[in-house]
Amino acid sequence: MTAALLPPDALEAALRAIGAERYHNLHPFHRLLHGGKLSRGQVQAWALNRYYYQRQIPIKDAFVLTRLPTPELRRLWRSRLVDHDGEQEGTGGIARWLKLTDGLGLERGYVESLDGLLPTTRFAVDAYVNFVRDRSTLEAVASSLTEMFSPAIISERVAGMLQSYDFITRDTLAYFTPRLTQAPRDVDFALAYVKAHATTREQQEQVLDALRFKCGVLWSQLDALYLAYVEPGLIPPGAFIPAAA
Amino acid sequence: MTAALLPPDALEAALRAIGAERYHNLHPFHRLLHGGKLSRGQVQAWALNRYYYQRQIPIKDAFVLTRLPTPELRRLWRSRLVDHDGEQEGTGGIARWLKLTDGLGLERGYVESLDGLLPTTRFAVDAYVNFVRDRSTLEAVASSLTEMFSPAIISERVAGMLQSYDFITRDTLAYFTPRLTQAPRDVDFALAYVKAHATTREQQEQVLDALRFKCGVLWSQLDALYLAYVEPGLIPPGAFIPAAA
Repeated sequence: MTAALLPPDALEAALRAIGAERYHNLHPFHRLLHGGKLSRGQVQAWALNRYYYQRQIPIKDAFVLTRLPTPELRRLWRSRLVDHDGEQEGTGGIARWLKLTDGLGLERGYVESLDGLLPTTRFAVDAYVNFVRDRSTLEAVASSLTEMFSPAIISERVAGMLQSYDFITRDTLAYFTPRLTQAPRDVDFALAYVKAHATTREQQEQVLDALRFKCGVLWSQLDALYLAYVEPGLIPPGAFIPAAA
Repeated sequence: MTAALLPPDALEAALRAIGAERYHNLHPFHRLLHGGKLSRGQVQAWALNRYYYQRQIPIKDAFVLTRLPTPELRRLWRSRLVDHDGEQEGTGGIARWLKLTDGLGLERGYVESLDGLLPTTRFAVDAYVNFVRDRSTLEAVASSLTEMFSPAIISERVAGMLQSYDFITRDTLAYFTPRLTQAPRDVDFALAYVKAHATTREQQEQVLDALRFKCGVLWSQLDALYLAYVEPGLIPPGAFIPAAA
């Protein structure tokens, strides 16, 4: 028996249900981060590790670009590279992320060296890049759909962090503000794409699995931060060690 | 200034020093496992996740085979596939690992489905396979050198587990006994290979980095098990949940 093709709205509802169960806003690390419960060293560890994710996003998007067949589709997707890499030196999402690590007192050369990364951060982020490189275009586009859930988490994060941490300023959180408008624009396109191009139930299941996979990529990164820097504090050999407070 | 080439014995000593700092026998999860401090459900979680590592090892070795240039080298490496895949149905390391998961009361179809895996397990193991596929032959061979440290851990594990757990028998631990002779044979070859083929200091550093990377692959898997099933018990959505004791 083959399950029937879902109507487009039911596919979208199934995607939202995955987010409601698996998106990393549900992870205890995020609750601590947004609730002002972390020390400066713990927030440093988060920003340092998340830098690797930010840094690899344009590589991921470039792999998507290699598979898109028309100038129109590629132009639409290219805006993601502009968002992250900027138009000139010092602009774009990666540069703004480095303002956050600067503001947290991390030495920029150390951040960029990746020397202090948790091994799991690297494995999870690389898994995402490889997924986009190796799977179908449909699955590659679908894996970006965690952005359906990101405006809510970003609003919580900015408000919570500004209120809670005296070492965080609106300027150091500059990364997040543009994302509030960029992410919905990207989602509109990606969601329309998967609704239009998943034309069999099997392809719809691939779309759902791609989103589950991506939720795992984000969740795994917070798991590793939690274990190393919150509880029980098992920092893997070679990884960043916060200075004593 | 370029650092000088290390004599072969100094390279071997540097490899052993990495193991002494980073090999996963130092991870608290292993101390709990070998010391008989885990519940049956926690040992199940370990065996279930580690199954994915066992299952992918022959894929990793097949990627190494694609890069070895001579029949002699390929024959030597081929013995690893024989060890893991066996000579007929029901033999080899993967089949023996399934005897362990059987003995622990896990349903074989569930184990083989990979449905209950921790996301981090998948990312770490896939990182290893991709490393071997994408890096130089020298780095691929060097990444196998964690086996320099495995006979000691296996001896500890078998003795500790037999003594501590009434749900573990010598038969369910059948996986490990042949590894005590297979691993040293494999190490002799791989160690001789990296000593002979790392002919610049840069290549020697690549060899050392490959071993650090591989230690991270093993460590990350235990981190994920510890977080989910020991402390604080954060099981990611969708992952294996042990039955109540």
